[in-house]
Amino acid sequence: MFQQLGLIGCGLIGGSFALALRQAGLVKRVVGYSKSPTTTVKARQLGVIDIEAPSALLAASGADLILLAVPVAATEATLRNIREMLKPEVLVMDVGSTKQDVVDAARRSLRDMLGCFVPAHPVAGREVSGVEHADANLFRDRQVILTPLERTQVQHLDRAQAVWEAMGSKVVRMSPEAHDRAFAAVSHLPHLLAFAAMNGVLGQEQGNELLALAGPGFRDFSRIAASDPAMWRDVLLANRQEVLAQSKAFQQALTAMESLIERGDGEALERAIRHASVARAHWRMGTPQSGV
Amino acid sequence: MFQQLGLIGCGLIGGSFALALRQAGLVKRVVGYSKSPTTTVKARQLGVIDIEAPSALLAASGADLILLAVPVAATEATLRNIREMLKPEVLVMDVGSTKQDVVDAARRSLRDMLGCFVPAHPVAGREVSGVEHADANLFRDRQVILTPLERTQVQHLDRAQAVWEAMGSKVVRMSPEAHDRAFAAVSHLPHLLAFAAMNGVLGQEQGNELLALAGPGFRDFSRIAASDPAMWRDVLLANRQEVLAQSKAFQQALTAMESLIERGDGEALERAIRHASVARAHWRMGTPQSGV
Repeated sequence: MFQQLGLIGCGLIGGSFALALRQAGLVKRVVGYSKSPTTTVKARQLGVIDIEAPSALLAASGADLILLAVPVAATEATLRNIREMLKPEVLVMDVGSTKQDVVDAARRSLRDMLGCFVPAHPVAGREVSGVEHADANLFRDRQVILTPLERTQVQHLDRAQAVWEAMGSKVVRMSPEAHDRAFAAVSHLPHLLAFAAMNGVLGQEQGNELLALAGPGFRDFSRIAASDPAMWRDVLLANRQEVLAQSKAFQQALTAMESLIERGDGEALERAIRHASVARAHWRMGTPQSGV
Repeated sequence: MFQQLGLIGCGLIGGSFALALRQAGLVKRVVGYSKSPTTTVKARQLGVIDIEAPSALLAASGADLILLAVPVAATEATLRNIREMLKPEVLVMDVGSTKQDVVDAARRSLRDMLGCFVPAHPVAGREVSGVEHADANLFRDRQVILTPLERTQVQHLDRAQAVWEAMGSKVVRMSPEAHDRAFAAVSHLPHLLAFAAMNGVLGQEQGNELLALAGPGFRDFSRIAASDPAMWRDVLLANRQEVLAQSKAFQQALTAMESLIERGDGEALERAIRHASVARAHWRMGTPQSGV
């Protein structure tokens, strides 16, 4: 049980965390700060936070649990802002979609308080953003990746795991490097492809008319293209090497299929499609895959 | 009201059409044929068809409405098979995802019966196939594209439109060429990208372990990768020129974003993402887009 959550960033993820923590009966009071004052006001009006703080430092002040829910590029500045308020017994987490850059930022900014910090990535989200979409059940049945540093205190790591599990999440621990490689493949690249697919159509004459004909396949395929631009700019830049490497692997697979189409090699094309289709048909979110 | 539907191909789409037609009170009897006899038996047991036919010809025999729901590459052979049973007053439709090749096949095979044929593409489907997934409401609120030939009889075209509208579909008429260009952009290419994205990950060491970490974004993005391999082999080959042209447009958009990532140009990257994001956030399935 925490006395006070200091929530820095009252968007979809931060707001959902506050609601979920409250729903789990794990917090007495939520003090929130957002860069935009209107967001902080809205968060209080919606009951996501109890008290508006005028700065990240004041949101962190007196908190025994601090959550950074800001675009990953803002992590270092935010940690520096709150650094002087930290005590060894305070648990600090982030929710960033990349972890190597967050870990580096924490190393540079937290110094002797580095042991408080448990880097976290809840594999949840929606294509809409904003506190008005916050949902106490957003993390239920979702995976949360924790990427502790060598200096992270075990007590904080275990408490972090307990918090997420109390919200219904499944916790997985791995290194920041392994995390960033994996999520380049299964999240960052798919977002990049969805953005590029939209732009590829929009760049054509009558692009909007083409889109008007699209059906449910396109709807689902392109859903993530509606994601928050500032957040995804940061993610793609922070994890650029892994993202570009994954894009290369993807383009090789695409080129291979294109040349089968060009050659009219139906048999090999069907084999390539079947390879993808069988794997996807057997895939279940958040469970170890057969063949591992 | 039709006396008898001759259903050739009792899969997801064919089966759903039979159920929807029955639900709309538009047919007395459904005679069905599938290449695989076990499918035909299953279709009867599930109440999708009333009578099993041992051949396409016998399914068509006595029907006043014939639906071809077979992979597009099988269209020509199927039309040749049933050609001798056709009378001018019989309405014949297909449900293929490509239309130029279907129209060409009809021209070659139907000759003086070409006026019976109304090429149709219901923009509906699921990533699962098979008659056991047939659904009387599959076409409700979905667009159906009709691409009549110059020799299509107006009475058949109007009846075709009335049939789909009775199932709750919105009917759009366009030329086969315009259809194939549009669906290369908003359906065929997205499928190709989803297949390639799966294969790009599967081709990596520990590909299955990476997939185990994927979340809801990947789930929706990759759903269409589970689609039927034989059907999509045919679609990608039948519409290869438009698909490859769309793939080129996509790759240009991807390369442009990659170079912004490489250069670390956050401002331009955010602009490119926002371009996609705003368009996708405002997109609504099956409605004219703002900006058209």
